[in-house]
Amino acid sequence: MKKKVTVHTPGTVANLVCGFDILGLCLDNPCDIMEVSLCDEPGVTVSSKDGFSLPTDPAKNTAGAPLIEMLAELGQPIGFEVTITKQIKPGSGIGSSAASAAGAVVAANHLLGSPYSKEDLVRFALFGEKVASGVKHADNVAPCIYGGITLIRSIFPLDIVTIPAPALHVTAVHPLIEVRTSDARQILRKQVLLKDAIRQWGNIAGLVAGFMKNDYDLIGRSLEDVIIEPVRSMLIPGFDEVKEKCKSAGALGGGISGSGPSIFMLSKDKPTALAVEKTMQEIYTRIGLDHHTYVTTINQQGVKII
Amino acid sequence: MKKKVTVHTPGTVANLVCGFDILGLCLDNPCDIMEVSLCDEPGVTVSSKDGFSLPTDPAKNTAGAPLIEMLAELGQPIGFEVTITKQIKPGSGIGSSAASAAGAVVAANHLLGSPYSKEDLVRFALFGEKVASGVKHADNVAPCIYGGITLIRSIFPLDIVTIPAPALHVTAVHPLIEVRTSDARQILRKQVLLKDAIRQWGNIAGLVAGFMKNDYDLIGRSLEDVIIEPVRSMLIPGFDEVKEKCKSAGALGGGISGSGPSIFMLSKDKPTALAVEKTMQEIYTRIGLDHHTYVTTINQQGVKII
Repeated sequence: MKKKVTVHTPGTVANLVCGFDILGLCLDNPCDIMEVSLCDEPGVTVSSKDGFSLPTDPAKNTAGAPLIEMLAELGQPIGFEVTITKQIKPGSGIGSSAASAAGAVVAANHLLGSPYSKEDLVRFALFGEKVASGVKHADNVAPCIYGGITLIRSIFPLDIVTIPAPALHVTAVHPLIEVRTSDARQILRKQVLLKDAIRQWGNIAGLVAGFMKNDYDLIGRSLEDVIIEPVRSMLIPGFDEVKEKCKSAGALGGGISGSGPSIFMLSKDKPTALAVEKTMQEIYTRIGLDHHTYVTTINQQGVKII
Repeated sequence: MKKKVTVHTPGTVANLVCGFDILGLCLDNPCDIMEVSLCDEPGVTVSSKDGFSLPTDPAKNTAGAPLIEMLAELGQPIGFEVTITKQIKPGSGIGSSAASAAGAVVAANHLLGSPYSKEDLVRFALFGEKVASGVKHADNVAPCIYGGITLIRSIFPLDIVTIPAPALHVTAVHPLIEVRTSDARQILRKQVLLKDAIRQWGNIAGLVAGFMKNDYDLIGRSLEDVIIEPVRSMLIPGFDEVKEKCKSAGALGGGISGSGPSIFMLSKDKPTALAVEKTMQEIYTRIGLDHHTYVTTINQQGVKII
């Protein structure tokens, strides 16, 4: 008889404003559901419950690739069957590929009797991000597995630091246009001005201090990105207006979620987060662009075994 | 009768490894002594008690320039007389000019009945740094006035954040060669690689988190500078060897103090800090370069009214 587990695997916001490639946070919603079974036959199969077309080769699938790595390391004649019910839209910038990768490895680890640490699981899940975007970036998979706000100080070698923070409400809007992660990465300049880099590391230091001091004003002042956002925001219609008006509506600040096109904003309380949602909806309704919005909080647990 | 006050104004370490231009810490030693008097005659005079030659024009003096700004803002027919006993060697990279500027404004503020906040005092003291190096950088004057470890998130507008940290012992060596701040600034490239900037902001985020979590290992791992140090360390004979051997002797890490030529190292305890001092002395004795060493701790108070 096959052993089977169901997990809820959440969306994440990577590239947290001034924390490009190093800082991400875990959301309570949206959330995918994954069923993973441990089988006696070697190999990995991945299928979708809701009609998303997935690559037939599991090595090219964001849930499959990490499990193939895990099985190679284990060296045992076993396999996994994965079924995904997607609620995090692929290409939204809310960590859809990371959710699949992280959910798969957390579930597999549970089925195996938890031989692996969270850091090990991030290491496996990175193979899913490599498949998805060509780059092993950890600022989605780490918060997805650890929960909360996580800093990836370094990726080679992997150095993950959890960052405590006060209660924060997250509002996100997903305008229904496609921004491919690989395209969003390609338009970035390879060199930046030293003075801009200094401003950016002042902001990331301020943001980490703001989170750890529970200083909402400092968090708000530090949510500034002078390097990535000015380039990437051009790919997102309405970005400047959304940001300005959401801040006028009371948001502490925010920016592009991941590589976009979603935009997220942090607020101190739920009424503000709802006012921010209304602002986002009004702007995209006027522009005439289909969109989804989310009002949620920070998920402190990460992938959850059901 | 003139009102008079004496202050002890300490040395500081700016450009704290990955925190170029934004992070500094205050030392218990070395320390200058300043006597400041409030006079009825307008104007500022600055003199040295120990034979250092000072600019005769107080506007060109690092203690005089901030006081001239303060008097201009006050708009009262008063003046200050300043006498300095220097123990922090000018050009050592341990915040000699900042000590004069910060000491002068803290003393003047005290004599006036403390009308100004610490942030105001930093704003005035920056005029001294402008005189000294041509640039208003606050990562010496801010820790000198606030004490402890301070982050300057932004300089325009000024945004100073104190960073709590565990007990740390500081060892510094001043090899007696001259590195002018303006020269050290000039050799920096105006552009940096995005991938290096990302590594740097991962490190500064890790360093702030390490301080605030009392995580010595994380502090050590984060004390890495991939942008400034590789360029500036070439100006300091023996730098690479000092750094490597001090870490082997148990230091958490360290780097160039300010714009050099002093090198500082952080350690967890005093025996390690003393072993680090011995390592520094051995290297510069072998090289044949005169040098001073300091073994001290973090000064939590900043400029002290005696």
